[in-house]
Amino acid sequence: MKVEMICTGEEVLLGQIVDTNAAWVANALMDIGIEMQHRVTVGDRMQDLVDAFRERSQHADVIIVNGGLGPTTDDMSAAAMATAKGEQLVENKEWISRLEAWYQRSGRQMPESNRKQALLPQSAVMVDNPVGTACGFRVKLNNAWLFFTPGVPFELKQMINEQFIPFIQNELGAKTNTKITKLLTIGQGESALQDQLSTLSLPDGIELGYRSSMPHIDVKIFARGDQAINKLAKVTKVIKANLGDVVVATERATLAEEIHHRLFQSGISLALAESCTGGLLASQLVDFPGSSSYLHHGLVTYSNESKVQLLGVKPQTLDDHGAVSIKTVEEMAEGVRGLLDSDYALATSGIAGPDGGTDEKPVGTVAIALAVKGGGVHSQMLKFPIKKRDIIRGVSAAVAYDMLRRALLGEAVIVDYPSYYRYPK
Amino acid sequence: MKVEMICTGEEVLLGQIVDTNAAWVANALMDIGIEMQHRVTVGDRMQDLVDAFRERSQHADVIIVNGGLGPTTDDMSAAAMATAKGEQLVENKEWISRLEAWYQRSGRQMPESNRKQALLPQSAVMVDNPVGTACGFRVKLNNAWLFFTPGVPFELKQMINEQFIPFIQNELGAKTNTKITKLLTIGQGESALQDQLSTLSLPDGIELGYRSSMPHIDVKIFARGDQAINKLAKVTKVIKANLGDVVVATERATLAEEIHHRLFQSGISLALAESCTGGLLASQLVDFPGSSSYLHHGLVTYSNESKVQLLGVKPQTLDDHGAVSIKTVEEMAEGVRGLLDSDYALATSGIAGPDGGTDEKPVGTVAIALAVKGGGVHSQMLKFPIKKRDIIRGVSAAVAYDMLRRALLGEAVIVDYPSYYRYPK
Repeated sequence: MKVEMICTGEEVLLGQIVDTNAAWVANALMDIGIEMQHRVTVGDRMQDLVDAFRERSQHADVIIVNGGLGPTTDDMSAAAMATAKGEQLVENKEWISRLEAWYQRSGRQMPESNRKQALLPQSAVMVDNPVGTACGFRVKLNNAWLFFTPGVPFELKQMINEQFIPFIQNELGAKTNTKITKLLTIGQGESALQDQLSTLSLPDGIELGYRSSMPHIDVKIFARGDQAINKLAKVTKVIKANLGDVVVATERATLAEEIHHRLFQSGISLALAESCTGGLLASQLVDFPGSSSYLHHGLVTYSNESKVQLLGVKPQTLDDHGAVSIKTVEEMAEGVRGLLDSDYALATSGIAGPDGGTDEKPVGTVAIALAVKGGGVHSQMLKFPIKKRDIIRGVSAAVAYDMLRRALLGEAVIVDYPSYYRYPK
Repeated sequence: MKVEMICTGEEVLLGQIVDTNAAWVANALMDIGIEMQHRVTVGDRMQDLVDAFRERSQHADVIIVNGGLGPTTDDMSAAAMATAKGEQLVENKEWISRLEAWYQRSGRQMPESNRKQALLPQSAVMVDNPVGTACGFRVKLNNAWLFFTPGVPFELKQMINEQFIPFIQNELGAKTNTKITKLLTIGQGESALQDQLSTLSLPDGIELGYRSSMPHIDVKIFARGDQAINKLAKVTKVIKANLGDVVVATERATLAEEIHHRLFQSGISLALAESCTGGLLASQLVDFPGSSSYLHHGLVTYSNESKVQLLGVKPQTLDDHGAVSIKTVEEMAEGVRGLLDSDYALATSGIAGPDGGTDEKPVGTVAIALAVKGGGVHSQMLKFPIKKRDIIRGVSAAVAYDMLRRALLGEAVIVDYPSYYRYPK
C-alpha cells in the first residue's frame, strides 16, 4: 500500500513552524509497519492544492492531507478537494448540529465563520473529530483515498490513531503483521548505540530503528511476520542486556512518564528543588493527571538567597563549593525533602549556559542529588557534551528521574552513562 | 520567481528526524522577501527522485534540492539528476583536486567512495562547498534551475547564504519585496479574530494570515511591494486598535518571551506559586538565558499541605473557599511574594482535569492572582472552554503572564478576553 502525505499551510511551507506533524504521522505509520512514500508541502493557494491532489492521487493508494480545515479564508482544503474532483461543497448536517451543540454547551454563540467547517465535498465521508471544531473527511479521487485531517497537533493525533489507522487496517486491509518494542535510552549517542548493536546477529524479519528525541534516543525493534514476532521478546532481552544501564524504560515516551507510572497511587511522596532545570521536573510530572497523588511540592530556587532561605542551604556551602556543586545539591535535596518529610527528593543545580561557564565547571556541568527518607543522599556531578541550554536542562531532568527510578527499583542509584562525563567525587 | 524545494532522504520522510533544514531554508528566503512555493519530500529511491525533478521543473523557476550528495550508495541525487536530464555523469576535475588536497592536508588517504562525490551531470555547474566533501551543483531542466545542496545543516546554511542567494539575486534578478509584522494574541478564537478583522478594508498588497499555536494565535500582516510596505506600520496600528486587549505582544513567539524581555536586567524581581500550572510558568522563563536576574524563586504547591506550610495559606481559607478560589490564590501570591519580598508574584490554582471538576467549578476553572509589592493583589477566576489538561495549563500560564505584563505597563491588570468566561468576583 502506497501511503503519501500532503501538508498544507503557509506557516509550514515558509518555515515559521517546523513540520512536526509530518514527522509524527510518519512515525505513527512506521509503528504499524507502513512506510510513508512521498510528501508534498504546499501553501494556502487554491491552484497548488488542486494540482497536488490531482497529481498525487494518480500515484498513491492513500494520501493523508493535513491542515486547512479551519474556519478562516486561508483554510481551503475542502474547497480545493471539491474543485479537484469537480463537485460541489455541501453542508454536512451532522457536523453543523455537533458544532451548534458544542458552542451551546460552552454558553457561546457559534461564529458564522464556523459554518464553513461543515462544508464538505459532495462525495466526502465525514470523519469524527471529538476534540475540535474541524471535522475530518475522506474522498476517493483516481486511485487514492484522500484523508483530510486537522492541523492542530492533538486533534490530528487523535484522528490518526482512532480513525485513520482503523480505516486503512479494516477497510483497505493494510497488512500490519508487525510488532514493535520500543526501548527508551539516555546517555549514549545514536551512532554509538548503532555500532554496539551492529555486532548482534538478528533473526530474519527483525530490524532495528533509531529515533533521537533529546534527551532520549528510542531504539525500536521491529518484528515483521509471525516467526519474527515470536522471537521479539527474546531478542528484546538480548538487546537490553547488551545495552545495559542506558536502557531506562520500555514502551514509554519519556522518563517522566515512567516515573509517573511508578509513583501514581503508590503512596510514595516526592519533593523537588530545581535550579538549572527551573520547574521542568515539576512541569513534566504535572502533565500527567493524578500527579498530585505523589508530587507534594517543588521549589524553583534559582537565586542563592532562595536556596538559603527556602531550603536551608548553608551560606558557607555556597561560599566554599559554589551553587553548582555536589555539596549544594545534597543540601538542597535534604532541605526540600525535610519541608514536608517526603519520601524522596530530587535536586538539580547546573550551568545551562550560554554564559556562566568556567574552565573548572564549563557550560553543561550539572550537579544532581536524590535524598531518601531515612536513607541519606545520593549525588553526582556530570558534564554533558552539549552546549544548548534547553537540551542541558532536559538531559539534567532525565538523569535526575533515572536516579529516582533506580532507587525505586532498589538498584544502584549512580551508574556510568557512556556519553556523560562524571566528575570524581 | 517561483522557488521550490525538494528534500531527499528516508530519515526525513519517515519522521526519524524532523526536517529543520526545510524550515531554515524557507526562513532564509523569507528574510530576503521570497516565499517558498512548494516542497516535495522523497525517500532514497531513484525513480521517485527522477519523477520529482522532471515534474517540478515544469512548474518552478528555481528548485533547491537538499541531501543525497554523500559518498554512500543511498546518496543518489546526482545520478537521478543525470537520468532526469538524459545525460552522463562526468567526473569534475576541479572538485577531485579539491578533495585530494583536502585529504592530503589532514594527512589521510582519500577513501575511494569519495570519488563519487565529484561525479556530476554533464551540464552541471559546480558550486563550491568550502566546509565539506560534497560539492553543490546546479543544472537547468525545463523551466527550472535545480540547485543541489548538502544535507549537513551547517554546510547547507553556508551554501545557501554564500552561493544560492547571490545566484538568484544577481543572476536571476530575484525581487525581494515583502515585509511581515506578527501580532501575538490570546483569549479569542481564530475564527472570531478573522470575523472581527474582515470588516477592515486593507490597502492593496496587505494580507492577513493566522496561525494557532495554543495558547496563542498569531495574526500575521504581510506587506508585498513598496507601497504596501510603506503602509505596514499604519495598518498594524489600526489592527491592534481594532483587536484591543487580545493583542499581547508584537514580534514575539510567546508571552513568556515578552515577559522575559520586560524583566531581563530591569532590577524587578518575580516569585511564582504554581498549583495547576505546576512549574510551567517557571520553566518557560528559565528557558531564556539570564532569567536568573529576575526569577528569584518559584514554588510548585500542589498539595493543600504545601500551600499551608510553605506559602502560609490559611487552612480556614481552604476549608471555606476550596483550593481553586480567588481567596486561596490571593493568599498564595501574597505568601510567595513575602518569602523574599519580591516585587511581583503570580499564583495559579485550577482544575486541569480530566477529573476533579464539579458543577460549580468544572474542569477548566482556574484562579489566578498577581501580588504587587506595596500594591495589594489582583485576582480573577476564569473558565476556559477547553478540557485538555496541557492546554488548560498553557492558557492559565498565558493569562498569568498577561496580568503581569499589564501591571508592568501600568495598565488595568484584569481585562475581558472574549473566549474566557470570568466568574463574578
